[in-house]
Amino acid sequence: AAAAAPGKAARPCPCPCPLPRADTSLSRLVRRLLSARRSLDLCMFSFSCPQLARAVSLLHRRGVRVRIVTDAQFMGLHGSQIGRLRHAGIQVRHDQHSGYMHHKFAIVDRRMLITGSLNWTSQAIQTNRENVLVVDDAECVKPFLDEFERIWEEYNPTNYSF
Amino acid sequence: AAAAAPGKAARPCPCPCPLPRADTSLSRLVRRLLSARRSLDLCMFSFSCPQLARAVSLLHRRGVRVRIVTDAQFMGLHGSQIGRLRHAGIQVRHDQHSGYMHHKFAIVDRRMLITGSLNWTSQAIQTNRENVLVVDDAECVKPFLDEFERIWEEYNPTNYSF
Repeated sequence: AAAAAPGKAARPCPCPCPLPRADTSLSRLVRRLLSARRSLDLCMFSFSCPQLARAVSLLHRRGVRVRIVTDAQFMGLHGSQIGRLRHAGIQVRHDQHSGYMHHKFAIVDRRMLITGSLNWTSQAIQTNRENVLVVDDAECVKPFLDEFERIWEEYNPTNYSF
Repeated sequence: AAAAAPGKAARPCPCPCPLPRADTSLSRLVRRLLSARRSLDLCMFSFSCPQLARAVSLLHRRGVRVRIVTDAQFMGLHGSQIGRLRHAGIQVRHDQHSGYMHHKFAIVDRRMLITGSLNWTSQAIQTNRENVLVVDDAECVKPFLDEFERIWEEYNPTNYSF
């Protein structure tokens, strides 16, 4: 499902980018992300999918303000893309408690919420049964925006107590 | 958060039931579930929370049609409530493939969708950062209803190929 080769429903694309082009769930998700013009706020328990990391890096290079919150235990696992994204200059914060930061949502331009069961891992995309819900209703997006800002401050390294 | 003892916001409740009474995220979730009159369709990757299992059992005893789809690998883990629910006479089906059945959603009376990052486990409820979204917009509920029916048929034991 995550193949980069154009499939039956592929649209002509003159650019040599490595992003997926076939009309798959993954390519539709990537297109939603790449629609960001000002900000991407991402809360992701586990993030190991290279294609999605490329899309997030691209937004950062375009000048979109990208902020990532992730889980402290999962960010260090083999295949995690978090180190690479940090290395690219993207701000990343993580939890400091024993439970999991288990959210899996993204907010594009503070208006479009992308949420569901899907962790951004290749296994999830290729082999699991998952759902992704895209919502632009302000009443639905608001609590997720509030939760993001709350977590972003809570996980600010200057607030860590040692 | 899952305490059964009434908290500050508790409402008087004359019944001796063991369901949580304080106004917590868990009690609000239980109340939504107990509003079911005709059907509960549940797709749950991991289900080990005793309070939620009690609520589901209660619906079954009230005559609500309960159907559960779960993950084959996680249903056998220590603390899973799936065996108990099956024993109570509730229909349960599970996946037959290597990936996870990773959905975490419930549909009440084919009208109200309860979905998010939350597995119905005590750990998730007590210690994780999670979200639960309750939606009754028909356009949102429909794809989840369709997915439930598709999976329910796909995981029908009479369709297993050995």
